[in-house]
Amino acid sequence: MSNTFDLLQPYLDKDMALGTALTLINWDMETLAPSGGMEYTAKAVGILAVESFHTLINEDVNNILTKLETEEEQAQLDEIQKAIVKKLRKDYNDLKVIPADEYKAYSELQATATNVWAEAKQNNDYNKFAPVLKRLIDFQRKFIKYRQKDESNLYDILLDDYEPGFTVEMLDRFFNQLKETIVPLVQKVSMNKEKVDNSFISKHYDIEKQKEFCNWISEYVGFDLKRGVIAESAHPFTTNLHNHDVRITNHFLENNLESAIFSVIHETGHALYEMQIDDKLTQTVLGSGTSMGAHESQSRFYENNIGKSIDFWIPIYKRLQETFSEQLQDVSLEDFIRGINKSSTSLIRTEADELTYCLHIIIRYEIEKMIFNNEIEVEDLPKVWNQKYEEYLGITPTSDTVGVLQDIHWACGNYGYFASYAVGSAVAAQIHSHIKKVMPFEQYLREGKLEPIREFLKENVHKYGKLKSTNEILKDMMGEELDAKYFTDYLVEKYTKLYELN
Amino acid sequence: MSNTFDLLQPYLDKDMALGTALTLINWDMETLAPSGGMEYTAKAVGILAVESFHTLINEDVNNILTKLETEEEQAQLDEIQKAIVKKLRKDYNDLKVIPADEYKAYSELQATATNVWAEAKQNNDYNKFAPVLKRLIDFQRKFIKYRQKDESNLYDILLDDYEPGFTVEMLDRFFNQLKETIVPLVQKVSMNKEKVDNSFISKHYDIEKQKEFCNWISEYVGFDLKRGVIAESAHPFTTNLHNHDVRITNHFLENNLESAIFSVIHETGHALYEMQIDDKLTQTVLGSGTSMGAHESQSRFYENNIGKSIDFWIPIYKRLQETFSEQLQDVSLEDFIRGINKSSTSLIRTEADELTYCLHIIIRYEIEKMIFNNEIEVEDLPKVWNQKYEEYLGITPTSDTVGVLQDIHWACGNYGYFASYAVGSAVAAQIHSHIKKVMPFEQYLREGKLEPIREFLKENVHKYGKLKSTNEILKDMMGEELDAKYFTDYLVEKYTKLYELN
Repeated sequence: MSNTFDLLQPYLDKDMALGTALTLINWDMETLAPSGGMEYTAKAVGILAVESFHTLINEDVNNILTKLETEEEQAQLDEIQKAIVKKLRKDYNDLKVIPADEYKAYSELQATATNVWAEAKQNNDYNKFAPVLKRLIDFQRKFIKYRQKDESNLYDILLDDYEPGFTVEMLDRFFNQLKETIVPLVQKVSMNKEKVDNSFISKHYDIEKQKEFCNWISEYVGFDLKRGVIAESAHPFTTNLHNHDVRITNHFLENNLESAIFSVIHETGHALYEMQIDDKLTQTVLGSGTSMGAHESQSRFYENNIGKSIDFWIPIYKRLQETFSEQLQDVSLEDFIRGINKSSTSLIRTEADELTYCLHIIIRYEIEKMIFNNEIEVEDLPKVWNQKYEEYLGITPTSDTVGVLQDIHWACGNYGYFASYAVGSAVAAQIHSHIKKVMPFEQYLREGKLEPIREFLKENVHKYGKLKSTNEILKDMMGEELDAKYFTDYLVEKYTKLYELN
Repeated sequence: MSNTFDLLQPYLDKDMALGTALTLINWDMETLAPSGGMEYTAKAVGILAVESFHTLINEDVNNILTKLETEEEQAQLDEIQKAIVKKLRKDYNDLKVIPADEYKAYSELQATATNVWAEAKQNNDYNKFAPVLKRLIDFQRKFIKYRQKDESNLYDILLDDYEPGFTVEMLDRFFNQLKETIVPLVQKVSMNKEKVDNSFISKHYDIEKQKEFCNWISEYVGFDLKRGVIAESAHPFTTNLHNHDVRITNHFLENNLESAIFSVIHETGHALYEMQIDDKLTQTVLGSGTSMGAHESQSRFYENNIGKSIDFWIPIYKRLQETFSEQLQDVSLEDFIRGINKSSTSLIRTEADELTYCLHIIIRYEIEKMIFNNEIEVEDLPKVWNQKYEEYLGITPTSDTVGVLQDIHWACGNYGYFASYAVGSAVAAQIHSHIKKVMPFEQYLREGKLEPIREFLKENVHKYGKLKSTNEILKDMMGEELDAKYFTDYLVEKYTKLYELN
């Protein structure tokens, strides 16, 4: 046992407690808080956020870490303590190199940028947003210069923030592989689109009944209401105070059967990850999902690989049909499965289906890479954006609102984030391929036995929190790191069958 | 403008932000949080509470305050700043005299005491609770000794915590006056109890319909949903993040029409106080109701003086009757008003009506006074409790569960609190008497015009926050401090008429 580590504990405790408070306030603002109070509550949030920032990033913590990094001290630390020290050191080094006044100016810019973006998006006025975006990017360029340790690609540093260990080199290879398969596959599907009918999805579905069914299916998939809450918000999301209090939201559309159902399954996938993290790790800096991509792999595994399969629906489709007897009486299980899996090219990432989704990501990845390699000016982004949509998806945005202005990420200063979404889909496919080999996966689904699947994910993915990276998780599980081929094979097999392409 | 005051600002900001966080977490735990997460969330709460405690009670703040208390600095402060300095000094002095180790031991005892109390109450086992209660009281006796500045009554110090400026001398006079009127009045009412029928209250009332009506009536009274939230919890309560985010809860019983309706009107009264505090004061240490009694005066004014009057119900009884047409079709407005005002002696304070309520408080006040004047041993409390119930209410508790163990306050270490409830009723009656003189009060109620009443309370009570004490508010409003006669006159008039006692 290390006495030096004990010195760190009060800082870790305070960081955890402030994090819990900020998470809850954010949840409350998205789900319940009265609109008139936001401005005042934001003042408290700002103060807590600054307090939280300085809790672990300060000279005292640095000194304790330096001591804990000596060989002698390391010998006394257990595995979790070592990982905590490593994580704190990384965060400390990433932030201490940035001059305080620049960080403050950046934070202030960030706080106003999303409003400018929202207005620009609403008015289809890219020129309004461009100067703010340019300033955000300039800050990020400076910051990654400060953080750069060797001659590696600057964009690597940003990718690493969301997918620790991932680089441009790895992701170029990954995305090229996806592109080679998906672009021609999407073209073939487009030519056969009349083969799948999903008109039943846009009938009228009573919202109260949708809610009831969605809450039920979330529990069916494994959401534990003793350790979680389901609420509503404008956009569905998952958050957690710790592994015993995990919260998801859903949203409901009257003329859309699939939106709420697959949103809630998606968020339940995220929630199961957080619920199944080890008790020893929760409330530590290692106590949540290991990366954005790993998290997205779990939500997508449940939403797509499980939730859109016929095996999953065999035991439960009758319940849905009874809930909406009028709308679904003539829709067979097979038609339902075909309908929810229909693919069509569209302009909006968040509305894209499983097949076309990655093309939206590839476009953003390629553009971000150009930005941070100084190969493009901010004013040229709309033009390049539209060209790439035409090239990969065969459609051209009719306005910047549904083009380059559609996502909030860049306005938040989140560069390097998008790639994680595609990594998530690929990891999900890889786990899917493996899990079928180690258990009677489809049979379990057909029997409504989801518990062994949850248990497998807990033991192989969830419980480790941030103790293992995405690639370490895959390697330990199946002896291989991320490989795009599992995802491309999955897509080819699935859509060839669905659209009878052979 | 004082530069020294600026030095205080970061401490005030942090105190406000942590207070906001703790308030929200508490609200969430009472209304929404999953049961399985409490233990983990409590860990975060404990850390935040300690952090919050030390934010304003520390040597740095003390030094700044000392400087701000000089004549020269005082001259540069505005009225609000002066009041903040005064409040911080009082809190600092109250706490710094208590040795840190004793305070810690007391806090630890406090944290477990409510569980011991709950178990003792459930099992009707006073002896289980007595040793804990004795230790809590011993701590409080020591603490008030430390805080005592002169030879005044020790119990004064506790009373002042909840009702700044109130003393045993004032409250002895106050309660004697109440006792002289209420005890014989209750006896007369008891002898005439068959004159009022309230059997319609315990019919079956659909909970969803109750909810809808209660939410409507809360808005009717003035609750602003743009600045507030209505939710459910085991016991109704009001809380607020600031004056633009005020939250109330309600609870619903299937066989009780009045519980939810008058609970929501009561909590709306509390909420209006907080909503109408000046923007300049909210998010400062002066930014909530000035005392427990003043707060209770507002909730009771709305619940009883307004909510139980026929004038209030004239424009809206039809709506209630339509909501519950089956149950209320044969209940006239007059019968309804008589029924909701029925008085009967009972053992439980929280279920007591407007007339008998103060007797429950007098009993607790007299016992607390004996405790802190060393005139009673903890083991004798049940005996004295039961004797007083027999003497004042004419009934004897059948067990300690419905006797001395019924309230949580003593287990929380809240001594001196109960008196505020009676002060609240008396202040409400005093405001009621005054408001009838300055506006056509009953006419406004009959016309459904509650806005001028709200406005009057805002201008005369609410907006000042803690800038004025309860007695200062009354004095500035009507030229008189608290006087029990308004309340006794009100009760005599009301119940004489209701029970036809003349």
